[in-house]
Amino acid sequence: MLLLHLSDVDEASWAEALRAALGDYPVVRRGEDYDPADVRYIFVWKPKPEAFDGLTGLRAILSLGAGVDALLKHPALPDAPIVRFVDEDLSQRMSDYVVAHVTMHHRLYTRFQADQKAKLWSQLYPPAASETTVGIMGMGVLGQDAASRLKPLGFDLRSWSRTPKDMAGVVGFAGADQFDAFLAGTDILVNLLPLTPETTGILNTQTFAKLRRDRLAGGPVIVNAARGGHQRESDIVAALRDGTLGAASLDVFETEPLPASSPLWDIENCYITPHIAAISNEATGVRYFTNIIKRHEAGEALVNVVDRRRGY
Amino acid sequence: MLLLHLSDVDEASWAEALRAALGDYPVVRRGEDYDPADVRYIFVWKPKPEAFDGLTGLRAILSLGAGVDALLKHPALPDAPIVRFVDEDLSQRMSDYVVAHVTMHHRLYTRFQADQKAKLWSQLYPPAASETTVGIMGMGVLGQDAASRLKPLGFDLRSWSRTPKDMAGVVGFAGADQFDAFLAGTDILVNLLPLTPETTGILNTQTFAKLRRDRLAGGPVIVNAARGGHQRESDIVAALRDGTLGAASLDVFETEPLPASSPLWDIENCYITPHIAAISNEATGVRYFTNIIKRHEAGEALVNVVDRRRGY
Ligand SMILES: NC(=O)c1ccc[n+]([C@@H]2O[C@H](COP(=O)([O-])OP(=O)(O)OC[C@H]3O[C@@H](n4cnc5c(N)ncnc54)[C@H](OP(=O)(O)O)[C@@H]3O)[C@@H](O)[C@H]2O)c1
Ligand SMILES: NC(=O)c1ccc[n+]([C@@H]2O[C@H](COP(=O)([O-])OP(=O)(O)OC[C@H]3O[C@@H](n4cnc5c(N)ncnc54)[C@H](OP(=O)(O)O)[C@@H]3O)[C@@H](O)[C@H]2O)c1
Repeated sequence: MLLLHLSDVDEASWAEALRAALGDYPVVRRGEDYDPADVRYIFVWKPKPEAFDGLTGLRAILSLGAGVDALLKHPALPDAPIVRFVDEDLSQRMSDYVVAHVTMHHRLYTRFQADQKAKLWSQLYPPAASETTVGIMGMGVLGQDAASRLKPLGFDLRSWSRTPKDMAGVVGFAGADQFDAFLAGTDILVNLLPLTPETTGILNTQTFAKLRRDRLAGGPVIVNAARGGHQRESDIVAALRDGTLGAASLDVFETEPLPASSPLWDIENCYITPHIAAISNEATGVRYFTNIIKRHEAGEALVNVVDRRRGY
Repeated sequence: MLLLHLSDVDEASWAEALRAALGDYPVVRRGEDYDPADVRYIFVWKPKPEAFDGLTGLRAILSLGAGVDALLKHPALPDAPIVRFVDEDLSQRMSDYVVAHVTMHHRLYTRFQADQKAKLWSQLYPPAASETTVGIMGMGVLGQDAASRLKPLGFDLRSWSRTPKDMAGVVGFAGADQFDAFLAGTDILVNLLPLTPETTGILNTQTFAKLRRDRLAGGPVIVNAARGGHQRESDIVAALRDGTLGAASLDVFETEPLPASSPLWDIENCYITPHIAAISNEATGVRYFTNIIKRHEAGEALVNVVDRRRGY
């Protein structure tokens, strides 16, 4: 039996689609008549404190989110394996966001927008993409997809991950020891890390000060589409104001929705989007989790299982 | 003998580099001591009215510009073949511009910027790149390069040219007969046409009204990086104001520099850059024209010769 426990999304719609896809396999929603002990899979998004109560027969927790940082903090999380959502459509949309913001800053949008406001015609030729280095933090599913889209555009690319990664045309850096060297050659820093104790607050003043300063007119740039917990917003405000950063594109925030009192709203070189970089798609999600359940019921191993010790 | 006649660029620097590259072959500048009858090649940018006087031995006119619309209007243009500049570096920079502006509009920048000004957190998910059609007008050197960069990003692509073009993954339309069909499926219209009598003013109200309206929130978008003569600016102003267009990115203008009196400066969904999409690079230009001269002197045919009848 599959139990749905999805907050803040259209659970009824997911239930209908999953029932159609799973055929005979029983699918139930909270409040319906079922025995919790019969639940083998629970499909969750923002689970309530009591979400896992009585689920004594649980085989796996299926996470609609690609990131499981919030789920791992659930106070009553059972010991069952957690399968996170990994999806080409999600990766494409995230890369759409990353490419749009990287190229916008590479083409010095902040400078030309200010000139336009001043009705100023002042020619300045941006560097070629090949003269600009994009540094990607987090070289997992999303980081690798972003790299594969930025590469044909001609950008110089480097990446930073926990363990060494080898991707053609991307200079790989790994671990805390190589973080400073990674930053020192980066003009545009893209964050696609998972949120873990090690990565919390990694977008801070010290990090910004280590980026390369002499390539992009206006200063180095950050693009954060991972989690608000990665960024110290007071540090970003200061860095955008004092020129340590030339610009920042932020899709995620320490508190969401971003409070009206945040100074970020009013900063001209801060580019805010309301956590819309990438959304989990129902059609591909139904296909993905249906396969997970069918294959696991047929005795196959689970895929994309979260390593709780690492935190992602 | 090669004569340099370059206005508005650093002619001395080009002369030095060309002399170094051409070795024994004589290179002269205006005002220096030479017999005009000895000039076999003239290298021009914005030539003055008397530029070609006395050049009775001319074998070819070398154009620093990729576009030759202004040169073809020179009142005393000799009958010699015109070789235009075609360059990978120039193409890369133009594609950098095109990709940055296409992706910015695809990600609904105008909408999110307005929300940020209003401190409004309002989620809206842009379509995936694969759900968005970019229509490229002009499928020559620049149009093909832009298509090859947009393709790996996942965009749906179509092109329009004078004669049919066949590029993998790009639906080709050709000629005046297929113009309306091309526009009807286009969400973001990119202009990379040469300026000729046929293409003058092609970015006008009628064209805008034929673009697809139901895909991109805010309406269809135009990106013009070719020539100001392609656009009717009064039509663009009206279309941006009445919603016929969702946004416009313009790198070129009917009059350059764009006069302070132009209403375009103040329109929020108009994105102005001061003709900086792509510049001819001295290093690659010297290599290119040195090869042209050496090979032609050795009896080989000229390449990238302008067809005067077609006007490009
Ligand atoms: N804003 C949005 O709409 C949105 C949507 C989806 C996802 N996200 C976020 O994006 C994150 C990444 O997703 P993903 O699917 O790409 O994750 P993933 O496949 O698990 O990849 C994580 C990457 O980060 C690296 N990493 C982890 N801890 C590190 C550390 N301490 N130091 C250096 N590198 C470290 C990993 O290194 P190894 O390769 O060595 O393991 C790996 O390369 C998610 O966790 C989620 O928070 C945001
Ligand atoms: N803003 C800047 O910084 C900048 C820099 C460089 C160049 N440019 C501009 O970009 C233009 C294009 O350069 P390019 O090197 O790509 O030119 P190109 O190689 O000559 O290609 C021109 C393309 O336009 C098509 N075309 C011409 N007339 C047409 C018509 N009446 N109807 C439909 N299609 C037509 C051609 O069709 P066929 O393939 O059938 O011949 C060809 O595909 C230049 O002329 C220049 O004005 C601007």
